[in-house]
Amino acid sequence: MTYGRPREFDIDRALEAATQQFWAVGYEATSLQDLLKSMGLSKSSLYQTFGNKHELFIRCLDHYQQSMVDKLNVQLNSSDSVKQFIGNFLEGVIAEAKNTSGRKGCLLVNTANELSQRDTDIAKAVTDGTGNVAKLFQQAIELGKQKKEISVDTSTEHLVSYLITAISGLRTMIKAGAETSTLKPVTDLIIKTLF
Amino acid sequence: MTYGRPREFDIDRALEAATQQFWAVGYEATSLQDLLKSMGLSKSSLYQTFGNKHELFIRCLDHYQQSMVDKLNVQLNSSDSVKQFIGNFLEGVIAEAKNTSGRKGCLLVNTANELSQRDTDIAKAVTDGTGNVAKLFQQAIELGKQKKEISVDTSTEHLVSYLITAISGLRTMIKAGAETSTLKPVTDLIIKTLF
Repeated sequence: MTYGRPREFDIDRALEAATQQFWAVGYEATSLQDLLKSMGLSKSSLYQTFGNKHELFIRCLDHYQQSMVDKLNVQLNSSDSVKQFIGNFLEGVIAEAKNTSGRKGCLLVNTANELSQRDTDIAKAVTDGTGNVAKLFQQAIELGKQKKEISVDTSTEHLVSYLITAISGLRTMIKAGAETSTLKPVTDLIIKTLF
Repeated sequence: MTYGRPREFDIDRALEAATQQFWAVGYEATSLQDLLKSMGLSKSSLYQTFGNKHELFIRCLDHYQQSMVDKLNVQLNSSDSVKQFIGNFLEGVIAEAKNTSGRKGCLLVNTANELSQRDTDIAKAVTDGTGNVAKLFQQAIELGKQKKEISVDTSTEHLVSYLITAISGLRTMIKAGAETSTLKPVTDLIIKTLF
Protein backbone atom coordinates (compact mmCIF):
# COMPACT_ATOMS: atom_id res chain seq x y z
CA MET A 1 0.00 0.00 0.00
CA THR A 2 1.11 3.53 -0.68
CA TYR A 3 0.71 6.29 1.86
CA GLY A 4 1.09 10.05 1.38
CA ARG A 5 -1.11 12.33 -0.73
CA PRO A 6 -4.19 10.35 0.35
CA ARG A 7 -6.52 13.21 -0.61
CA GLU A 8 -5.24 13.37 -4.20
CA PHE A 9 -5.35 9.62 -4.54
CA ASP A 10 -8.97 9.75 -3.50
CA ILE A 11 -9.70 12.50 -6.01
CA ASP A 12 -8.28 10.42 -8.87
CA ARG A 13 -10.28 7.37 -7.84
CA ALA A 14 -13.43 9.44 -7.42
CA LEU A 15 -12.91 11.02 -10.86
CA GLU A 16 -12.38 7.62 -12.43
CA ALA A 17 -15.57 6.30 -10.77
CA ALA A 18 -17.56 9.33 -11.94
CA THR A 19 -16.14 8.94 -15.47
CA GLN A 20 -17.24 5.28 -15.57
CA GLN A 21 -20.72 6.28 -14.37
CA PHE A 22 -21.15 9.03 -17.00
CA TRP A 23 -19.67 6.76 -19.66
CA ALA A 24 -22.09 3.92 -18.87
CA VAL A 25 -25.36 5.85 -19.22
CA GLY A 26 -24.58 9.39 -20.41
CA TYR A 27 -24.71 12.79 -18.75
CA GLU A 28 -28.47 13.39 -18.63
CA ALA A 29 -29.32 9.91 -17.37
CA THR A 30 -26.75 10.11 -14.52
CA SER A 31 -28.35 11.34 -11.30
CA LEU A 32 -26.58 12.96 -8.36
CA GLN A 33 -27.44 9.82 -6.37
CA ASP A 34 -25.69 7.64 -9.00
CA LEU A 35 -22.59 9.80 -8.69
CA LEU A 36 -22.52 9.81 -4.88
CA LYS A 37 -22.91 6.04 -4.85
CA SER A 38 -20.26 5.25 -7.47
CA MET A 39 -17.80 7.81 -6.10
CA GLY A 40 -18.43 6.85 -2.48
CA LEU A 41 -18.72 10.51 -1.46
CA SER A 42 -21.14 12.58 0.57
CA LYS A 43 -23.04 15.31 -1.21
CA SER A 44 -21.02 18.01 0.59
CA SER A 45 -17.65 16.41 -0.33
CA LEU A 46 -18.69 16.17 -3.97
CA TYR A 47 -19.77 19.80 -4.14
CA GLN A 48 -16.69 21.04 -2.20
CA THR A 49 -14.22 19.13 -4.33
CA PHE A 50 -15.80 19.14 -7.79
CA GLY A 51 -18.50 21.83 -7.81
CA ASN A 52 -21.74 20.75 -9.44
CA LYS A 53 -22.54 17.85 -11.78
CA HIS A 54 -21.71 19.97 -14.83
CA GLU A 55 -18.24 20.94 -13.56
CA LEU A 56 -17.58 17.36 -12.46
CA PHE A 57 -18.49 16.11 -15.94
CA ILE A 58 -16.00 18.49 -17.56
CA ARG A 59 -13.28 17.23 -15.17
CA CYS A 60 -14.24 13.67 -16.18
CA LEU A 61 -13.93 14.47 -19.91
CA ASP A 62 -10.42 15.79 -19.26
CA HIS A 63 -9.51 12.78 -17.13
CA TYR A 64 -10.81 10.43 -19.85
CA GLN A 65 -8.96 12.05 -22.76
CA GLN A 66 -5.71 12.26 -20.75
CA SER A 67 -5.85 8.53 -19.95
CA MET A 68 -6.58 7.69 -23.58
CA VAL A 69 -3.75 9.84 -24.97
CA ASP A 70 -1.27 8.34 -22.46
CA LYS A 71 -2.29 4.81 -23.45
CA LEU A 72 -2.08 5.55 -27.20
CA ASN A 73 1.37 7.09 -26.79
CA VAL A 74 2.65 3.90 -25.20
CA GLN A 75 1.10 1.82 -28.00
CA LEU A 76 2.54 4.00 -30.79
CA ASN A 77 6.02 3.76 -29.27
CA SER A 78 5.84 -0.02 -28.96
CA SER A 79 4.45 -0.73 -32.46
CA ASP A 80 6.64 -2.06 -35.28
CA SER A 81 4.95 0.14 -37.88
CA VAL A 82 2.39 2.93 -38.07
CA LYS A 83 0.13 0.65 -40.10
CA GLN A 84 0.26 -1.86 -37.24
CA PHE A 85 -0.50 0.87 -34.67
CA ILE A 86 -3.53 2.20 -36.57
CA GLY A 87 -4.65 -1.32 -37.54
CA ASN A 88 -4.53 -2.42 -33.90
CA PHE A 89 -6.38 0.69 -32.83
CA LEU A 90 -9.20 0.03 -35.32
CA GLU A 91 -9.30 -3.65 -34.30
CA GLY A 92 -9.71 -2.52 -30.71
CA VAL A 93 -12.58 -0.22 -31.66
CA ILE A 94 -14.51 -2.91 -33.51
CA ALA A 95 -13.73 -5.60 -30.92
CA GLU A 96 -16.12 -3.69 -28.64
CA ALA A 97 -18.99 -5.02 -30.75
CA LYS A 98 -18.26 -8.45 -29.20
CA ASN A 99 -18.70 -7.07 -25.70
CA THR A 100 -21.96 -8.61 -24.53
CA SER A 101 -22.05 -6.52 -21.37
CA GLY A 102 -22.63 -3.34 -23.37
CA ARG A 103 -21.31 -1.12 -26.11
CA LYS A 104 -20.22 2.01 -24.33
CA GLY A 105 -18.41 3.64 -27.23
CA CYS A 106 -16.05 6.57 -26.70
CA LEU A 107 -17.01 9.06 -24.01
CA LEU A 108 -15.94 12.00 -26.21
CA VAL A 109 -17.96 10.78 -29.22
CA ASN A 110 -20.98 10.01 -27.03
CA THR A 111 -20.79 13.46 -25.48
CA ALA A 112 -20.44 15.16 -28.85
CA ASN A 113 -23.62 13.40 -29.87
CA GLU A 114 -25.53 13.94 -26.65
CA LEU A 115 -24.64 17.46 -25.63
CA SER A 116 -22.15 19.41 -27.72
CA GLN A 117 -24.69 21.40 -29.68
CA ARG A 118 -26.55 22.43 -26.52
CA ASP A 119 -23.74 23.24 -24.08
CA THR A 120 -20.75 25.37 -25.04
CA ASP A 121 -18.58 24.48 -22.00
CA ILE A 122 -19.01 20.79 -22.69
CA ALA A 123 -18.48 21.36 -26.42
CA LYS A 124 -15.14 23.04 -25.58
CA ALA A 125 -14.05 20.11 -23.39
CA VAL A 126 -14.94 17.70 -26.22
CA THR A 127 -13.05 19.80 -28.77
CA ASP A 128 -9.98 19.99 -26.48
CA GLY A 129 -10.14 16.24 -25.91
CA THR A 130 -10.54 15.24 -29.54
CA GLY A 131 -7.83 17.83 -30.38
CA ASN A 132 -5.35 15.99 -28.15
CA VAL A 133 -6.24 12.65 -29.68
CA ALA A 134 -5.93 14.22 -33.15
CA LYS A 135 -2.45 15.50 -32.22
CA LEU A 136 -1.39 11.96 -31.42
CA PHE A 137 -2.73 10.62 -34.73
CA GLN A 138 -0.96 13.50 -36.48
CA GLN A 139 2.35 12.36 -34.96
CA ALA A 140 1.57 8.80 -36.05
CA ILE A 141 0.82 9.82 -39.65
CA GLU A 142 3.91 12.02 -39.88
CA LEU A 143 5.96 9.11 -38.61
CA GLY A 144 4.27 6.96 -41.29
CA LYS A 145 5.34 9.45 -43.98
CA GLN A 146 8.91 9.48 -42.66
CA LYS A 147 8.97 5.69 -42.73
CA LYS A 148 7.52 5.79 -46.29
CA GLU A 149 4.48 3.80 -45.17
CA ILE A 150 2.17 6.68 -46.10
CA SER A 151 2.28 8.73 -49.31
CA VAL A 152 3.32 12.35 -48.81
CA ASP A 153 0.82 13.40 -51.52
CA THR A 154 -2.14 13.82 -49.17
CA SER A 155 -1.85 16.40 -46.40
CA THR A 156 -1.37 14.99 -42.91
CA GLU A 157 -4.17 17.23 -41.64
CA HIS A 158 -6.65 15.73 -44.12
CA LEU A 159 -5.60 12.17 -43.29
CA VAL A 160 -6.02 12.88 -39.56
CA SER A 161 -9.53 14.28 -40.13
CA TYR A 162 -10.33 11.24 -42.26
CA LEU A 163 -9.09 8.81 -39.60
CA ILE A 164 -11.01 10.52 -36.79
CA THR A 165 -14.16 10.62 -38.92
CA ALA A 166 -13.77 6.92 -39.68
CA ILE A 167 -13.29 6.03 -36.00
CA SER A 168 -16.33 8.09 -34.99
CA GLY A 169 -18.34 6.30 -37.65
CA LEU A 170 -17.22 2.84 -36.49
CA ARG A 171 -18.24 3.70 -32.95
CA THR A 172 -21.70 4.81 -34.03
CA MET A 173 -22.14 1.65 -36.11
CA ILE A 174 -21.28 -0.46 -33.05
CA LYS A 175 -23.82 1.38 -30.93
CA ALA A 176 -26.42 0.85 -33.64
CA GLY A 177 -25.80 -2.89 -33.44
CA ALA A 178 -23.26 -3.67 -36.20
CA GLU A 179 -21.20 -6.82 -35.69
CA THR A 180 -17.42 -7.13 -35.82
CA SER A 181 -17.72 -9.27 -38.98
CA THR A 182 -19.53 -6.39 -40.77
CA LEU A 183 -17.00 -3.81 -39.63
CA LYS A 184 -13.78 -5.72 -40.35
CA PRO A 185 -14.04 -5.11 -44.15
CA VAL A 186 -14.75 -1.44 -43.35
CA THR A 187 -11.52 -1.13 -41.35
CA ASP A 188 -9.70 -2.82 -44.28
CA LEU A 189 -11.01 -0.08 -46.62
CA ILE A 190 -9.98 2.64 -44.13
CA ILE A 191 -6.45 1.20 -43.89
CA LYS A 192 -6.30 0.94 -47.70
CA THR A 193 -7.22 4.63 -47.97
CA LEU A 194 -4.48 5.70 -45.56
CA PHE A 195 -1.58 3.41 -46.58
CA MET B 1 -58.06 23.99 -48.06
CA THR B 2 -58.48 20.26 -48.36
CA TYR B 3 -61.29 18.43 -46.61
CA GLY B 4 -61.78 14.69 -46.22
CA ARG B 5 -59.64 12.34 -44.16
CA PRO B 6 -59.00 15.14 -41.67
CA ARG B 7 -58.03 12.70 -38.93
CA GLU B 8 -55.23 11.03 -40.97
CA PHE B 9 -53.94 14.36 -42.14
CA ASP B 10 -53.71 15.46 -38.52
CA ILE B 11 -51.87 12.30 -37.60
CA ASP B 12 -49.20 12.89 -40.22
CA ARG B 13 -48.72 16.50 -39.17
CA ALA B 14 -48.63 15.54 -35.50
CA LEU B 15 -46.05 12.82 -36.25
CA GLU B 16 -43.91 15.28 -38.20
CA ALA B 17 -44.11 17.81 -35.32
CA ALA B 18 -43.17 15.15 -32.77
CA THR B 19 -40.30 13.98 -35.00
CA GLN B 20 -38.94 17.55 -35.20
CA GLN B 21 -39.20 17.89 -31.42
CA PHE B 22 -37.36 14.62 -30.68
CA TRP B 23 -34.80 15.43 -33.38
CA ALA B 24 -34.05 18.86 -31.93
CA VAL B 25 -33.19 17.81 -28.37
CA GLY B 26 -33.24 14.00 -28.20
CA TYR B 27 -35.57 11.48 -26.59
CA GLU B 28 -34.66 11.89 -22.91
CA ALA B 29 -34.69 15.69 -22.99
CA THR B 30 -38.14 15.83 -24.65
CA SER B 31 -40.90 16.16 -22.05
CA LEU B 32 -44.54 15.24 -22.49
CA GLN B 33 -45.31 18.98 -22.29
CA ASP B 34 -42.91 19.66 -25.21
CA LEU B 35 -44.72 17.02 -27.26
CA LEU B 36 -48.22 18.27 -26.48
CA LYS B 37 -47.17 21.82 -27.35
CA SER B 38 -45.40 21.01 -30.62
CA MET B 39 -48.08 18.54 -31.74
CA GLY B 40 -50.96 20.79 -30.65
CA LEU B 41 -52.69 17.86 -28.95
CA SER B 42 -54.32 17.24 -25.59
CA LYS B 43 -52.78 14.61 -23.36
CA SER B 44 -55.74 12.27 -23.93
CA SER B 45 -55.55 12.59 -27.77
CA LEU B 46 -51.84 11.85 -27.69
CA TYR B 47 -52.25 8.76 -25.55
CA GLN B 48 -55.30 7.53 -27.51
CA THR B 49 -53.64 7.95 -30.90
CA PHE B 50 -50.00 7.17 -30.24
CA GLY B 51 -49.80 5.38 -26.90
CA ASN B 52 -47.03 6.58 -24.63
CA LYS B 53 -43.89 8.65 -25.34
CA HIS B 54 -41.90 5.51 -26.09
CA GLU B 55 -44.39 4.20 -28.69
CA LEU B 56 -44.70 7.65 -30.23
CA PHE B 57 -40.93 7.86 -30.58
CA ILE B 58 -40.81 4.55 -32.43
CA ARG B 59 -43.53 5.84 -34.80
CA CYS B 60 -41.41 8.96 -35.33
CA LEU B 61 -38.30 6.92 -36.17
CA ASP B 62 -40.31 5.07 -38.81
CA HIS B 63 -41.80 8.31 -40.18
CA TYR B 64 -38.32 9.85 -40.36
CA GLN B 65 -36.64 6.95 -42.18
CA GLN B 66 -39.53 6.63 -44.64
CA SER B 67 -39.29 10.34 -45.56
CA MET B 68 -35.52 10.07 -45.96
CA VAL B 69 -35.65 6.96 -48.15
CA ASP B 70 -38.36 8.55 -50.37
CA LYS B 71 -36.23 11.69 -50.81
CA LEU B 72 -33.07 9.72 -51.59
CA ASN B 73 -34.90 7.60 -54.16
CA VAL B 74 -35.96 10.71 -56.04
CA GLN B 75 -32.39 12.06 -55.91
CA LEU B 76 -30.82 8.80 -57.13
CA ASN B 77 -33.25 8.66 -60.07
CA SER B 78 -32.53 12.25 -61.08
CA SER B 79 -28.70 12.09 -60.82
CA ASP B 80 -26.47 11.82 -63.89
CA SER B 81 -24.13 9.37 -62.19
CA VAL B 82 -23.85 7.41 -58.96
CA LYS B 83 -20.71 9.38 -58.12
CA GLN B 84 -22.76 12.58 -58.40
CA PHE B 85 -25.55 11.14 -56.23
CA ILE B 86 -23.18 10.04 -53.45
CA GLY B 87 -21.08 13.20 -53.80
CA ASN B 88 -24.20 15.37 -53.46
CA PHE B 89 -25.37 13.35 -50.51
CA LEU B 90 -22.04 13.82 -48.69
CA GLU B 91 -22.03 17.55 -49.58
CA GLY B 92 -25.50 17.79 -48.03
CA VAL B 93 -24.31 16.10 -44.85
CA ILE B 94 -21.32 18.41 -44.37
CA ALA B 95 -23.29 21.54 -45.39
CA GLU B 96 -25.11 21.14 -42.09
CA ALA B 97 -21.95 22.36 -40.34
CA LYS B 98 -22.76 25.82 -41.78
CA ASN B 99 -26.18 25.79 -40.15
CA THR B 100 -25.84 28.39 -37.40
CA SER B 101 -29.23 27.55 -35.92
CA GLY B 102 -28.00 24.13 -34.81
CA ARG B 103 -26.44 20.89 -35.91
CA LYS B 104 -29.17 18.36 -35.48
CA GLY B 105 -27.49 15.48 -37.28
CA CYS B 106 -29.43 12.41 -38.34
CA LEU B 107 -32.21 11.23 -36.03
CA LEU B 108 -31.26 7.57 -36.55
CA VAL B 109 -27.58 8.21 -35.77
CA ASN B 110 -28.46 10.36 -32.75
CA THR B 111 -30.80 7.68 -31.46
CA ALA B 112 -28.23 4.95 -31.97
CA ASN B 113 -25.87 7.00 -29.85
CA GLU B 114 -28.35 8.04 -27.21
CA LEU B 115 -30.45 4.93 -26.65
CA SER B 116 -29.80 1.87 -28.76
CA GLN B 117 -27.71 0.03 -26.20
CA ARG B 118 -30.29 0.58 -23.47
CA ASP B 119 -33.60 -0.02 -25.23
CA THR B 120 -34.19 -3.03 -27.47
CA ASP B 121 -37.42 -1.74 -29.10
CA ILE B 122 -35.73 1.50 -30.06
CA ALA B 123 -32.63 -0.40 -31.18
CA LYS B 124 -34.84 -2.46 -33.51
CA ALA B 125 -36.46 0.68 -35.00
CA VAL B 126 -32.99 2.16 -35.60
CA THR B 127 -31.76 -1.07 -37.20
CA ASP B 128 -34.86 -1.24 -39.45
CA GLY B 129 -34.40 2.41 -40.43
CA THR B 130 -30.69 2.20 -41.17
CA GLY B 131 -31.43 -1.09 -42.98
CA ASN B 132 -33.76 0.70 -45.38
CA VAL B 133 -31.23 3.46 -45.98
CA ALA B 134 -28.56 0.80 -46.51
CA LYS B 135 -30.80 -0.91 -49.08
CA LEU B 136 -30.99 2.30 -51.05
CA PHE B 137 -27.21 2.77 -50.98
CA GLN B 138 -26.86 -0.86 -52.05
CA GLN B 139 -29.01 -0.15 -55.14
CA ALA B 140 -26.88 2.93 -55.83
CA ILE B 141 -23.60 0.99 -55.59
CA GLU B 142 -24.91 -1.84 -57.77
CA LEU B 143 -25.98 0.72 -60.34
CA GLY B 144 -22.47 2.23 -60.08
CA LYS B 145 -20.97 -1.20 -60.82
CA GLN B 146 -23.30 -1.67 -63.81
CA LYS B 147 -22.29 1.74 -65.13
CA LYS B 148 -18.61 0.83 -64.58
CA GLU B 149 -18.19 3.76 -62.18
CA ILE B 150 -17.34 1.40 -59.31
CA SER B 151 -14.94 -1.55 -59.45
CA VAL B 152 -16.61 -4.95 -59.11
CA ASP B 153 -13.60 -6.18 -57.09
CA THR B 154 -14.94 -5.07 -53.70
CA SER B 155 -18.21 -6.56 -52.49
CA THR B 156 -21.23 -4.25 -52.62
CA GLU B 157 -22.07 -5.18 -49.04
CA HIS B 158 -18.65 -4.02 -47.81
CA LEU B 159 -18.87 -0.76 -49.76
CA VAL B 160 -22.32 -0.07 -48.31
CA SER B 161 -21.05 -0.67 -44.76
CA TYR B 162 -18.10 1.60 -45.48
CA LEU B 163 -20.33 4.37 -46.84
CA ILE B 164 -22.74 4.23 -43.90
CA THR B 165 -19.82 4.21 -41.45
CA ALA B 166 -18.32 7.25 -43.20
CA ILE B 167 -21.64 9.15 -43.11
CA SER B 168 -22.12 8.35 -39.41
CA GLY B 169 -18.61 9.60 -38.75
CA LEU B 170 -19.17 12.87 -40.66
CA ARG B 171 -22.32 13.49 -38.65
CA THR B 172 -20.53 12.98 -35.35
CA MET B 173 -17.69 15.30 -36.46
CA ILE B 174 -20.24 18.00 -37.25
CA LYS B 175 -21.88 17.66 -33.86
CA ALA B 176 -18.46 17.88 -32.23
CA GLY B 177 -17.89 21.22 -33.99
CA ALA B 178 -15.96 20.39 -37.18
CA GLU B 179 -16.28 22.92 -40.01
CA THR B 180 -17.25 22.21 -43.62
CA SER B 181 -13.72 23.19 -44.73
CA THR B 182 -12.25 20.44 -42.52
CA LEU B 183 -14.71 17.84 -43.73
CA LYS B 184 -14.57 18.53 -47.49
CA PRO B 185 -11.17 16.79 -47.89
CA VAL B 186 -12.58 13.89 -45.86
CA THR B 187 -15.48 13.46 -48.29
CA ASP B 188 -12.95 13.57 -51.15
CA LEU B 189 -11.08 10.64 -49.56
CA ILE B 190 -14.35 8.73 -49.07
CA ILE B 191 -15.32 9.23 -52.73
CA LYS B 192 -11.80 8.20 -53.78
CA THR B 193 -12.18 4.97 -51.81
CA LEU B 194 -15.52 4.11 -53.42
CA PHE B 195 -14.90 5.12 -57.07
